[in-house]
Amino acid sequence: MTTNMTAPTREQCAALDAADPLHPLRERFTLPADVLYLDGNSLGALPRDTPGHLAKVVADEWGTGLIRSWNDAGWFHQPGRLGDRLGAHLLGAANGQVVVCDSTSVNLFKVLGAALRLRPGRGALVAERHAFPTDLYIADGLTGLYPGTRPVLLDSAAQLDAVLDGDTAVVLLSHVDYRTGELLDMAAVTERIHRAGALAVWDLCHTAGALPIELDAAGVDFAVGCGYKYLNGGPGAPAFLYAAERHHAAGRQPLTGWFGHARQFDFEPGYRPAEGVTRFLTGTPPVLGLAALEASLDVWELADPAAVRAKSLELTDLFMDLTADLDVEAVTPRDPARRGSQVALRHPEGYRIVQALIARGVIGDFRAPDLMRFGFTPLYLSRTDVHDAATALREVLASGEWREERFARRGEVT
Amino acid sequence: MTTNMTAPTREQCAALDAADPLHPLRERFTLPADVLYLDGNSLGALPRDTPGHLAKVVADEWGTGLIRSWNDAGWFHQPGRLGDRLGAHLLGAANGQVVVCDSTSVNLFKVLGAALRLRPGRGALVAERHAFPTDLYIADGLTGLYPGTRPVLLDSAAQLDAVLDGDTAVVLLSHVDYRTGELLDMAAVTERIHRAGALAVWDLCHTAGALPIELDAAGVDFAVGCGYKYLNGGPGAPAFLYAAERHHAAGRQPLTGWFGHARQFDFEPGYRPAEGVTRFLTGTPPVLGLAALEASLDVWELADPAAVRAKSLELTDLFMDLTADLDVEAVTPRDPARRGSQVALRHPEGYRIVQALIARGVIGDFRAPDLMRFGFTPLYLSRTDVHDAATALREVLASGEWREERFARRGEVT
Repeated sequence: MTTNMTAPTREQCAALDAADPLHPLRERFTLPADVLYLDGNSLGALPRDTPGHLAKVVADEWGTGLIRSWNDAGWFHQPGRLGDRLGAHLLGAANGQVVVCDSTSVNLFKVLGAALRLRPGRGALVAERHAFPTDLYIADGLTGLYPGTRPVLLDSAAQLDAVLDGDTAVVLLSHVDYRTGELLDMAAVTERIHRAGALAVWDLCHTAGALPIELDAAGVDFAVGCGYKYLNGGPGAPAFLYAAERHHAAGRQPLTGWFGHARQFDFEPGYRPAEGVTRFLTGTPPVLGLAALEASLDVWELADPAAVRAKSLELTDLFMDLTADLDVEAVTPRDPARRGSQVALRHPEGYRIVQALIARGVIGDFRAPDLMRFGFTPLYLSRTDVHDAATALREVLASGEWREERFARRGEVT
Repeated sequence: MTTNMTAPTREQCAALDAADPLHPLRERFTLPADVLYLDGNSLGALPRDTPGHLAKVVADEWGTGLIRSWNDAGWFHQPGRLGDRLGAHLLGAANGQVVVCDSTSVNLFKVLGAALRLRPGRGALVAERHAFPTDLYIADGLTGLYPGTRPVLLDSAAQLDAVLDGDTAVVLLSHVDYRTGELLDMAAVTERIHRAGALAVWDLCHTAGALPIELDAAGVDFAVGCGYKYLNGGPGAPAFLYAAERHHAAGRQPLTGWFGHARQFDFEPGYRPAEGVTRFLTGTPPVLGLAALEASLDVWELADPAAVRAKSLELTDLFMDLTADLDVEAVTPRDPARRGSQVALRHPEGYRIVQALIARGVIGDFRAPDLMRFGFTPLYLSRTDVHDAATALREVLASGEWREERFARRGEVT
C-alpha cells in the first residue's frame, strides 16, 4: 500500500482527535463497531439517548397520559417548540419563524405556494436543473396549479443573474448541492434575488446541522430542510420550515389544515389562518417522530456550530488530501467557502466501488451516474475514521476488488 | 344512587365479559389502572408490544442498519406493505390500493386533487358543512387552486340528492360523523354519487378499526383515514390513503414528490408518476411512526372485524341504555345500521361534565358547543368498563360536582 505523503499519518490524526473538544460527543451516538459511517448526509446516526427518550414518550405520554398529553405534555406546541430550538441553535432564526412538521417535499409545496402568492403578476419559479429532484417535482406540480407561473430551470446557479428579471417570482436554491457538496453564499445570492424583486427559498437539507446558518441575517424569505440527515432525527424524521416573520401576515399557503387554523378547536367550517408561523402547519403533528428529533437536538445543543463547521472543513480537507493521488476526480470545491460537509468523488465504476467499500464496513453512497458521496459529520466522526476510510478506498481501488460480481448494480440505493 | 332498571347489572356485565372471545385482547394494551378510557376515537391506547417493536426498529434498523435499512429492512416498501395489511384486514381493499403516509389532511389534498382532475368540466366539490373542519379547510384551499371548481356545502348528507347533478365532480363524506357518531351507508351513497357521474371520496377517520369497511365492494373511488384513533398507531401516527385501482393510470395528484416517482433513484429532473398507488406518495416516509402503526396492526390481525363490530354495537347500546334516564340528550342513532362506535350526549354544560368525569378517571371528550363524546373500542373496553363509566356520569350529574370552579373552561381540548 502506498500513501499520500503530504497528508497526516494515522498517528497524527489520533493525536489531533485526542485534543479535539468535540471528540467526546462521539460517545453520544450509538454506532456499530464494525462500521465507518460516512453517510450521515443521507441518514444521521442514532443518538445514544434517543431510544430512552422515545420509550419514555411512548410509555408515559402516550400510554399513561393518553389524550391528556396534547395539553399536559405540550404536544400541541411541539412543532413550534422544536422549531424555535432549531432556529436558535442552528438556523440563525429568531423564535416564531420555524416549525417542524411533514416532509421536506410537503413543506416545500407550502412555502413555494405562499411565495408565489406574495409575488402576483410574476410568473417564473427559478430553480436549478440539478437540484434534488423532489424539489423540481414539487415546483413542477405547484406551478401547474398557480395560473401564469412556470418553472425556469438553470443549468447552474451561476446562471442566476442572466435570468433574474421583473418576471421572476421565486428562486429556489439548494444551500449545498446534494451531488457535489458545493456551497452557495446564501446572503449574497439572496441579495441578488431581492434586487430583482423576487423571493428567495432555500433548501437546507444538506446544511442544517452541517454548518452555521444565518437565515434572518441573510434576509431569506422561506426555507425548508430535513430532519434525518445531519440533524440525526431518525429515518423519515419530520422536516422543518422557515417563514420570515415579515411574510406571516400576508403569507397564505395552500395546505390549509386544522393545525394551521386560527381557532382550531372552535371547529369553524371556514378556514382562517393562525397568527405567525403556525399557519404553515397542516395536519396533526407526528408526535413520535418529533420526540426522536427532540432527543437529537439535546445533543446538538452541546456543540458550538462554529466548532462543528471548523472540524467539518478539517475532515473534508483531510479526506481530499488523503485521496488526492487516487484515480478518482474530486468534484467538491477545495475552497472552504464553497464546500459543504461532504466530499464527492467521480469514477465511472463508482457504484461498484461504493459497494466494495460497504462490504468493508465503510458506508458512503452513490448518486447516478458516477458520483461517490462521503458525508463528514463532526459530531461522531474523527480524523482517524477519515484516515481509515481513505485507506479503505485506496485498497479497494488498488486491489480491483470492486470488479467482483457481487458488487454489480442491483435495485434501489439511497 | 339510582340506576336504570332495564339495563344489565354490573354483575351481568362481568359475566358477559368473561364469555367474550375478544376480552383477552385487553391484555394486549397498556392502560393506566386508574383510568376508564373512552377516548380511543380520538387517540387510541398503547398496544403492549409497540414499545418493544419500536425500540427494536430504532436500535437495530436505525442504529445498526443505518442507511442500509432502506433496502435491508424494507423501509422503501413500508407505506405499501402496511397499506396492504390495513386494506386486507380492515378496509376491504385488495392489495396495491392503500398506502400509509403523511397526515389525513395532506392525503385528502392529494386524493381530492386527483379526483377533480378526473372529472374535468365539472365544478362542484360537495361536502358536509359539519364535516370534520380540516376536511373543509383542505377542500377550500384545493378548490382555490383548481380553476372552475368550488366547494358546495350541505347542511347534512340527507340533502345530497338535491345537489347532485352534472356539475358535481366529487363528493366528500365522512363515513361516521365525528360529532354525533352517525354512520352513513357507504355502498348506497356511493352508488348515488356515481349515478350522477361524480366520484366518491370517503373520510374513514372514525370507522377504520371501528367496523368492517368494504371499499372495493362499495365501489369507492378514494378514501383517507387516520392511524391514531381506532387503529392505535400512536399520537400523530401516519394516515392512510386508498385509491381504487381503476383510477391509478389516469390519477394525477398535486403533491408530486420523489417517493411517488416512477424511477426515484434515477434522479430525473422531470416528474413521471410511479405505477399504481405508489404515485400517491410524496416525501420520505416517517419510518418510526410507521413502525408504531405496524405493531398495532399485529394486534388488529388477532381480531375478527365482524366480532369487533358486534361488540362495539353491544357496548354503545349498553351505554345508551344505562344513561337513557339521565338529563342528557343522546344524539347518536339507536339504529345500529346508522351508528358508529361512539355515543354523543348533549348537555349545555357538557364541557364541565367531561372535565368532572376526567377528574374521576373517566376520559371522554367534548366538542363545542355542547357535545360530550364517548368512544367505545372493543379491543380494550369491557361491558364492566361501560357500566362503571355510566355510573360515574350518573354520579357526576346527581352530585352537581361539575359546577366546581376547577372544571370551568380553559385552553385547548382535543
